[in-house]
Amino acid sequence: MKLYQSSHSPNSRRVRIFLAEKVLEVPFVDVDISKGRSHTPEYLKINPLGQVPALEMDDGTAIAESVAICRYFEAMHPEPPLFGCSPMEIARIEMWQRRIELNWFVPLIEYWHNSSPMWADRIGQIPVLAQHNSAAIGRFLTWLDGDMADREYIAGDRFTIADIIALATMDHANSVYVGLEVSKELENLARWHETVSSRPSARA
Amino acid sequence: MKLYQSSHSPNSRRVRIFLAEKVLEVPFVDVDISKGRSHTPEYLKINPLGQVPALEMDDGTAIAESVAICRYFEAMHPEPPLFGCSPMEIARIEMWQRRIELNWFVPLIEYWHNSSPMWADRIGQIPVLAQHNSAAIGRFLTWLDGDMADREYIAGDRFTIADIIALATMDHANSVYVGLEVSKELENLARWHETVSSRPSARA
Repeated sequence: MKLYQSSHSPNSRRVRIFLAEKVLEVPFVDVDISKGRSHTPEYLKINPLGQVPALEMDDGTAIAESVAICRYFEAMHPEPPLFGCSPMEIARIEMWQRRIELNWFVPLIEYWHNSSPMWADRIGQIPVLAQHNSAAIGRFLTWLDGDMADREYIAGDRFTIADIIALATMDHANSVYVGLEVSKELENLARWHETVSSRPSARA
Repeated sequence: MKLYQSSHSPNSRRVRIFLAEKVLEVPFVDVDISKGRSHTPEYLKINPLGQVPALEMDDGTAIAESVAICRYFEAMHPEPPLFGCSPMEIARIEMWQRRIELNWFVPLIEYWHNSSPMWADRIGQIPVLAQHNSAAIGRFLTWLDGDMADREYIAGDRFTIADIIALATMDHANSVYVGLEVSKELENLARWHETVSSRPSARA
């Protein structure tokens, strides 16, 4: 088994944090996305969509999409549970995972692709798209910050996959690559970020 | 228990199809999104993001996000399994669910919001955003059609949540509301659509 991943990819980091929380070790193959190495003919056989991460099994079968890879490890190694146990818990964690993904991560990537000099040569950037997504993220985070007033983690009182996705997203947003920093005035989010960043897995 | 939903909402339809496949009945409360009824103060208490569907439990707790609601029913009523059983199956279905969602459904909604007269009064439409998303969908569907040559369903040889999401997406794309029809030249997708549309659950 091998995990194709990239050190600067926020989706790869989700899996690295997940593995650290489960105390699992998997051999990594580094794919340099900044040099287009996720679009070589060899890599496209593993993931035809040219994205990292991807998990290749010993029989050559591959699983792409970060959360799909995490679910594989959750099913193989249920402890500690990061996707929930009871039906309500499973549903609540899925709800938060999707809220973070669809209202923060997806528009953040659109913002990044349409604003960063790193992408200028590779895609036809549309500046208005960067503004549109940055505004949508601002509205979502203001709401999320208020909603987080009474709980410690994104989906409740336990650390879950929703926290992993939110942490990888926030650190990517705040990075020099993206530069769409989360306002420090969002105090509940700042407190949450400090809590989850202090876990050993955050170094992954 | 009550399911807040809307007859024209593709995300509500996912849950309706899911319930039909599980042969479950849940009382519906219709929310007329075309009249802004998902943004009333009462509804925002159920889902502060103002989206349907949402599942309200008898104790007042609510779960939003279509796939989260489906996971609740899967955990309560595992048969027939629509999210997979073995670790590899669970991972493969999650991979396909996300590929369909992120590369087809999400850009389709962006296309719709930025092109339809139905949304013109409600959001500041950006025509270039409609073109950008329509082009991205076209590239994805061409690849998906080729990839589907050797299998019957989206995620393999069984009907799953990935088919439900893809069916609701394709029928929404082909509807008069959206009008971003899937080309009939994509023969594998056309064959798949005929197969899944013939299931009784497709009428939900």
